[in-house]
Amino acid sequence: MPNIQKVKPRTLSGFMELPPEKQIVFDLMTSRVRESFESFGFAPLDTPVIESAEVLLAKAGGETEKQIYRLTKGERDLALRFDLTVPLAKYAAANYGSLAFPFRRYQIGKVYRGERSQRGRYRELYQADIDVVGDGALGLFSDAEIPAVIYRTFRALGLGGFAIRISNRKILTGFFETLGLTERSGDIMRAVDKLDKIGAGKLRELLLSELSLPAPDAEAVLSLALASGEGDALDALESRAGRSETFDRGLRELREVTRLMEELGVPKTHYKVDPAVARGLDYYTGTVYETILTEHPDVGSVCSGGRYDDLAGHYTDKKLPGVGMSIGLTRLFFILDDTGLFDPRLMTAPCDAIIIPMTGDLSHAARLASSMRAAGLRVSVYSEDKKPGQKLAYADKLGVPFAVFLGEDEIKSGRITVKNMDTGEQTTASPGMLTEGIKEKTAERKRLAPVGG
Amino acid sequence: MPNIQKVKPRTLSGFMELPPEKQIVFDLMTSRVRESFESFGFAPLDTPVIESAEVLLAKAGGETEKQIYRLTKGERDLALRFDLTVPLAKYAAANYGSLAFPFRRYQIGKVYRGERSQRGRYRELYQADIDVVGDGALGLFSDAEIPAVIYRTFRALGLGGFAIRISNRKILTGFFETLGLTERSGDIMRAVDKLDKIGAGKLRELLLSELSLPAPDAEAVLSLALASGEGDALDALESRAGRSETFDRGLRELREVTRLMEELGVPKTHYKVDPAVARGLDYYTGTVYETILTEHPDVGSVCSGGRYDDLAGHYTDKKLPGVGMSIGLTRLFFILDDTGLFDPRLMTAPCDAIIIPMTGDLSHAARLASSMRAAGLRVSVYSEDKKPGQKLAYADKLGVPFAVFLGEDEIKSGRITVKNMDTGEQTTASPGMLTEGIKEKTAERKRLAPVGG
Repeated sequence: MPNIQKVKPRTLSGFMELPPEKQIVFDLMTSRVRESFESFGFAPLDTPVIESAEVLLAKAGGETEKQIYRLTKGERDLALRFDLTVPLAKYAAANYGSLAFPFRRYQIGKVYRGERSQRGRYRELYQADIDVVGDGALGLFSDAEIPAVIYRTFRALGLGGFAIRISNRKILTGFFETLGLTERSGDIMRAVDKLDKIGAGKLRELLLSELSLPAPDAEAVLSLALASGEGDALDALESRAGRSETFDRGLRELREVTRLMEELGVPKTHYKVDPAVARGLDYYTGTVYETILTEHPDVGSVCSGGRYDDLAGHYTDKKLPGVGMSIGLTRLFFILDDTGLFDPRLMTAPCDAIIIPMTGDLSHAARLASSMRAAGLRVSVYSEDKKPGQKLAYADKLGVPFAVFLGEDEIKSGRITVKNMDTGEQTTASPGMLTEGIKEKTAERKRLAPVGG
Repeated sequence: MPNIQKVKPRTLSGFMELPPEKQIVFDLMTSRVRESFESFGFAPLDTPVIESAEVLLAKAGGETEKQIYRLTKGERDLALRFDLTVPLAKYAAANYGSLAFPFRRYQIGKVYRGERSQRGRYRELYQADIDVVGDGALGLFSDAEIPAVIYRTFRALGLGGFAIRISNRKILTGFFETLGLTERSGDIMRAVDKLDKIGAGKLRELLLSELSLPAPDAEAVLSLALASGEGDALDALESRAGRSETFDRGLRELREVTRLMEELGVPKTHYKVDPAVARGLDYYTGTVYETILTEHPDVGSVCSGGRYDDLAGHYTDKKLPGVGMSIGLTRLFFILDDTGLFDPRLMTAPCDAIIIPMTGDLSHAARLASSMRAAGLRVSVYSEDKKPGQKLAYADKLGVPFAVFLGEDEIKSGRITVKNMDTGEQTTASPGMLTEGIKEKTAERKRLAPVGG
């Protein structure tokens, strides 16, 4: 169509669109995350990307609302989901009568936030969430399961250097009570939450000057926030017990949750009790979590969550307390990719073997491909009429590990020649035998965790 | 929050939102489709749901454009994708320089069409597409691969009763040439395309009265359209050869494509040469496909596609011919669900086993769950403080196949009791042995194809 005015084919900024070899790695990550969630008995949920704006924004306001993609269709006022929690609340409230509680669901899907686009900020991003939602009440065991899922999931991704920071909101809340600072607790929590980024000196300054706390109060808050550095943080907290019921309850809960976490397989090396973990959201009322990559603390938390008392108060009178967490999958992918953490041995080719026919008739190639597929391999046939060198260059560009040559000789003898594209080594044998060899070699690579060790 | 005005939690009509036990079946379907696509060496692509309206609508017009969800954010004019072909065209044009051609990609994702909502019509729906895109040219082997993928995919879903209807557009086009009807070919093709739905009598009427074809022409068209009933349809077509180059070329291509299809494993029982397959889209220029469920012909084609000369003419001067197909996954799911075709033995529970602790301390349950998960099972712990009957009712409601009881006796003896929830049978043995037993029994069910045989 030479006379048609061309439109420049472009993808919006802030929207992820990966080349195939990276998409394969992203999909591997996603499937490992899914398997891990499923091993804990979480059920999949897939809610629409579009919801009625009234439903989606029942609770939103301020910054959140500004970021939302809104649209109208006919007379309907619609919006794109900006997280997976609001759709869960809607779903649980709408299906309250038919669900079995505790309702354990996971959802992996895209969410939309019209943020200013910058490196590491996406407008369309995958989140991977799990939540356990109770009907009226929910025991602490679920609070311990969430970090167990985080641990198993991050290990399944191949990550070693990460730490789950855990606390209980009641500890800070109770502590503020004892200082008579309850009314300021929101501001102080947000300040304390920054400790990791700004350090103790700056936090003291913030508490004294910006929040105008009296010096002894500022020191007390700072000392509590730093308790994670004092040997056993739980003991350090214990020394402050007995002055607030809220504080004491938070501490008891935290002790129980960390005890059960360990029974569920989270080793001491991978979690840290840290009362400075406050999480910005008002929403959380008990256990709170963050997960940091120990070698990349600068990127902040890559997986956060906590306990809430009331999931769906905007939709129903039923009290639905729960606990959950969310992995920012798109963000995590880019961090791992940028820092070169993916295992270079990962299979990034779309096929395990490519058949390169050396004759005009492609019948033999077709039959060989079918038999190799039936044996469980992913197989392409290079079917274009090009020079042998160009055919091999194609295989090379895709990173295909094995090329299978099929010429007159091979067809006559019933034996085929396979080239290992990494080593250059060529082997001639029966198709069945070579198929088994390729299966073995590629299966090893497919078992690799995304992050190399 | 008793004082807050509640918003009714509802999901928009035309938007799929499945309960967990159905979502699990949908996910099983999706993963079988993905595995099948990957076995042919197609690479995954994941393009954004939102695109610039200018890019997305470069080619659209008329009915399509009316259905589109459009929105603005800041000063940007945006739209939600309505298929996966336009994003492929954009992607291939934008990444022409870095892609290896033939570019073989699959994409499974949601698309958006603001249709009037009715049973079987969705506004948000999953499509599962494959395409092979060539650079300048693409051999006929790819035309044969598409039905091979369709066949393998439908078989992987467990479907037996389906037929791939195949033709080549050039046959009808060439035939119209010989009748001097070239200028009317669009209208006539659309009429012929309806043959399956309206029958021969009505088609004759349509050709004569609505399209005002002379009687001999109408009979000739009708007779060609009915050629699939005449024994070997290819031979029936051959008898009409020698009068139009276009017709003859189409017939040669169709012969070659069906020959290679068979070499690629598509049996004669599952495809049918049928010159009445025209496909509505102008876009197609050669081989065309439809797939019908033989026991549900009324639902029409559930998987269609074809050969096109120019994928991305609106974005680039590069000629990118290709061939592909699309499965309407959401629609197919609802057809199979409505007609009760899913295997009733399918695993629809989110876990293979649920541990039911009979003691207050959940430590043992936590450790047992961890060891069963490490062995590869999906395991929940019922951690709420309820009566044993309520705990079992929960397991029952979820359809969990095995319940594991853990009371004082079990903890003391180191042996556990497992109840098969289907048969009621209880077994007491070591955790390791029971875990192996549960693995074996559930693995069988997990291997089942979605559709029962």
